[in-house]
Amino acid sequence: MKFRRSERLIDMTNYLLDHPRELVSLSLFAERYGAAKSSISEDLAIIKNTFEHRGIGTLQTVPGAAGGVKFFVKVSEEEARLFVNDLCKLIADPDRLLPGGYLFLNDIIGNPSIVHKIGRLFASAFSETEIDVVMTIATKGIPLAYATASHLNVPVVMVRKDSRVTEGPTVSINYVSGSTKRIQTMLLSRRSLKEGSKVLIIDDFMKAGGTINGMISLLNEFNSTVAGIAVLVEAEKTSERLVDEYLSIIKLSDVDVKKRKINVSEGNYFEKSN
Amino acid sequence: MKFRRSERLIDMTNYLLDHPRELVSLSLFAERYGAAKSSISEDLAIIKNTFEHRGIGTLQTVPGAAGGVKFFVKVSEEEARLFVNDLCKLIADPDRLLPGGYLFLNDIIGNPSIVHKIGRLFASAFSETEIDVVMTIATKGIPLAYATASHLNVPVVMVRKDSRVTEGPTVSINYVSGSTKRIQTMLLSRRSLKEGSKVLIIDDFMKAGGTINGMISLLNEFNSTVAGIAVLVEAEKTSERLVDEYLSIIKLSDVDVKKRKINVSEGNYFEKSN
Repeated sequence: MKFRRSERLIDMTNYLLDHPRELVSLSLFAERYGAAKSSISEDLAIIKNTFEHRGIGTLQTVPGAAGGVKFFVKVSEEEARLFVNDLCKLIADPDRLLPGGYLFLNDIIGNPSIVHKIGRLFASAFSETEIDVVMTIATKGIPLAYATASHLNVPVVMVRKDSRVTEGPTVSINYVSGSTKRIQTMLLSRRSLKEGSKVLIIDDFMKAGGTINGMISLLNEFNSTVAGIAVLVEAEKTSERLVDEYLSIIKLSDVDVKKRKINVSEGNYFEKSN
Repeated sequence: MKFRRSERLIDMTNYLLDHPRELVSLSLFAERYGAAKSSISEDLAIIKNTFEHRGIGTLQTVPGAAGGVKFFVKVSEEEARLFVNDLCKLIADPDRLLPGGYLFLNDIIGNPSIVHKIGRLFASAFSETEIDVVMTIATKGIPLAYATASHLNVPVVMVRKDSRVTEGPTVSINYVSGSTKRIQTMLLSRRSLKEGSKVLIIDDFMKAGGTINGMISLLNEFNSTVAGIAVLVEAEKTSERLVDEYLSIIKLSDVDVKKRKINVSEGNYFEKSN
């Protein structure tokens, strides 16, 4: 069956959005639509222009017989700034304040559209980094990890704080929570992570960085390495931070529970991702 | 700036995929591209045909001054059968067997592409049901809940088994696990769920149904109602099931840990979703 260009463009758009960072050969599209490769090349040029113009992402062409095209999520700085500004306003609401300077973020983390955009920001920042897997810790990091992983086209592994029969054999480590100084345990299913993996660590909230530090220790047990660290919110603090290199979208400072005051600003995203 | 049809089709496809079940007015598109509404109508007819032909979903036209178009995820029976068959084969691997007749599913739940497809199946089955929010319980139900919620364009609430400071005030209930008969606790943040919500409950695995039954009890505490229940895997069992009406994609039977034998078949998805 022959497809007209308009139908090809719609289906190719859907296909590419569903297969980020995956090399798609021109032959695949040519066969899918019964079209000449030259027509497919023209289609892809139109899609590339539109994706870039509308801030959807970009297409990278890989030349040669084994070549094809790869779609990368790419968020423009303008779009990112608009989104981060909106998020700052949303988070600055003093009703979010919880004991200990924590913030209620369930409504934000529970909104798939916001989570999708956060995933786009993270994936855009790490689009050129080699990443085999995204790692996060239960519970609130999970949606952010999936949103990012789906845009990077890699699997997710979930670290837990409790053991369950459905995990099979696990590797566990003890770590010291940086803010409370309590010793805690985290564990990862033995089969979940291959040795030698390059891992992007994602979490919702970083205070001193003890939890993320724990995940790094856990990676060592799997002979795997950190490819990057990204958090939605970092709490600025006076005492020493346990993690150095990370990407944050939002920064909290001057959290005063008594005076119900939060100072919210953009994180280091715009310094680090350009 | 004027857009050519090809550029409009690509951007509209992306826009509609990103805004399922949302009424998008023709004026929005007309302004976005500086095009006449009649041209936008023609574009939408092409997109509708292609979406239906390629099994992406469907567009519903709402006539009148306040009208527009809504995109619904719709998975064809053929696509669903192919996917469920593949999933059955993947799950039938006896290496997945864990003590107690549980199955190791982390690799499946950790694959965003599979999770995305499971979300499409659930969203397709409930596309015409009135749903305000998707509810799940930590941990492995979370990715499935988000995948479904993003296709239904509703928020997610996460029930937990442990209390955290970041939840704020919570409502907790005790429930009896149907298979182990142990009394357990689950809790939901007070602010997470509005009274009177219509809730789709999603989980990865249902044995006797005690956990899902617990979530239903929790909903009662929020004066909310069950709009549907969907699980990835149901374990067929001899003793009484605590939950009657549910949708399942996969059914496990004859799980024999000693003989390392699992019988995997399709769940009731094809009976229930048509």
